[in-house]
Amino acid sequence: MYQLHYWPTIQGRGEFVRMALEYAGVEYADVARADEKDGGGEDALMKAMNRKDLVYPPFAPPWLEAGDMVIGQTANILLYLGRHHDLAPHDEAGELWTHQLQLTIADFIVEIHDVHHPIGAGQYYEDQLDEAKRRAGDFRKHRVPKFLGYFEKVLDRNPASSGCLVGDKITYADLSLFQIVAGLRYAFPKLMRAIEKKYPKVMALHDRIEAQPRITAYLKSDRRIPFNKEGIFRHYEELDEAAGT
Amino acid sequence: MYQLHYWPTIQGRGEFVRMALEYAGVEYADVARADEKDGGGEDALMKAMNRKDLVYPPFAPPWLEAGDMVIGQTANILLYLGRHHDLAPHDEAGELWTHQLQLTIADFIVEIHDVHHPIGAGQYYEDQLDEAKRRAGDFRKHRVPKFLGYFEKVLDRNPASSGCLVGDKITYADLSLFQIVAGLRYAFPKLMRAIEKKYPKVMALHDRIEAQPRITAYLKSDRRIPFNKEGIFRHYEELDEAAGT
Repeated sequence: MYQLHYWPTIQGRGEFVRMALEYAGVEYADVARADEKDGGGEDALMKAMNRKDLVYPPFAPPWLEAGDMVIGQTANILLYLGRHHDLAPHDEAGELWTHQLQLTIADFIVEIHDVHHPIGAGQYYEDQLDEAKRRAGDFRKHRVPKFLGYFEKVLDRNPASSGCLVGDKITYADLSLFQIVAGLRYAFPKLMRAIEKKYPKVMALHDRIEAQPRITAYLKSDRRIPFNKEGIFRHYEELDEAAGT
Repeated sequence: MYQLHYWPTIQGRGEFVRMALEYAGVEYADVARADEKDGGGEDALMKAMNRKDLVYPPFAPPWLEAGDMVIGQTANILLYLGRHHDLAPHDEAGELWTHQLQLTIADFIVEIHDVHHPIGAGQYYEDQLDEAKRRAGDFRKHRVPKFLGYFEKVLDRNPASSGCLVGDKITYADLSLFQIVAGLRYAFPKLMRAIEKKYPKVMALHDRIEAQPRITAYLKSDRRIPFNKEGIFRHYEELDEAAGT
């Protein structure tokens, strides 16, 4: 059984791994979400990450323990899960193309996070509010259209015309793009209402992923942590407008 | 023969690919650096990226054409080159660990870039100077030590005690870490002079990579574009201090 190690109170980057594990129907322990007496909690997570006997230490959560392997970096974990649970094509070109899309999603995730933390991830939002407002304007005007437009193009050009990003089967990249749309809708509802219609294939993919039985069940379960103001996607009224500046 | 597509006047992300190709002694065309009459130049690069017949369009340069494949995202290109040119272990655990380190380097690269562009990559540096100064203080105080300290730890814990990041052979991650150190020394000379001694293994790795015959020859050649104020690593006096704030 896999052990996922991630912050226990947010979706964050761990959610992209959870989505893949849940869709694949794989059993896993979400270690830090256990009771503290059972080894859960943030302190235990930090302790686990800083263990001196870890020969291959992760830089940050999430990491996945898979037998003897300790795999860090979200996209790297998904590369592994893609191979072992049929969440990506097995031929080299298909594997790399799926991973390329995931790395582009990873770039988008950094930008989504940095909207509310443009100065420093370790500093309070309130202490970088002016900068956040400026960055949010640029993000809404330039970056969201660039990324969503890109994924719309990829869906449009997929030779399989499947509604998925890669070939004719759901991959981990599709699951991650669902999470991007869900998160943007939470964090930027005004913006998304105004622009969603420009990206019909991206939105249709979101709905299709949401309707997958295991995902539907997961989203209703208490394993799905609600969006909140500690994660990557944060709703601050002052950062959300129907347009960019 | 490979075709590398990247901005012709900067090292940028393309340099991490160039380092791997050069170290492996692989023949490649740096397409956009050719004369305009031979298909080079920025306009040709943009045109190539936006070709409507590209079924697997890259989001941004660099991308590598390898036979029929068009591979985008720097770390993904390196994953491919690692496999085909013995620049990473071939077993799954070793391949993923090398890639994990590369993805952590990729995260660092984003932060290095965003020091001078904390508000928007499409806006002028001069228009985000105040924010850049604030971010640079956080970067110097918290982020550089966190990343360099991490790679020092990885080198220290490598069971092979080889001075390389992974096992006992040079991988693409080592080549990338060389480039990080070289770039930081260019962009933040005061900071680096003050802190380098804390990361002796990282600095020794830099020197070892620099001394590899093919790399030495490359660095002296005109294929190596000099650092400048258009790339990821930029030297602005006002962002460089011996300590963070």
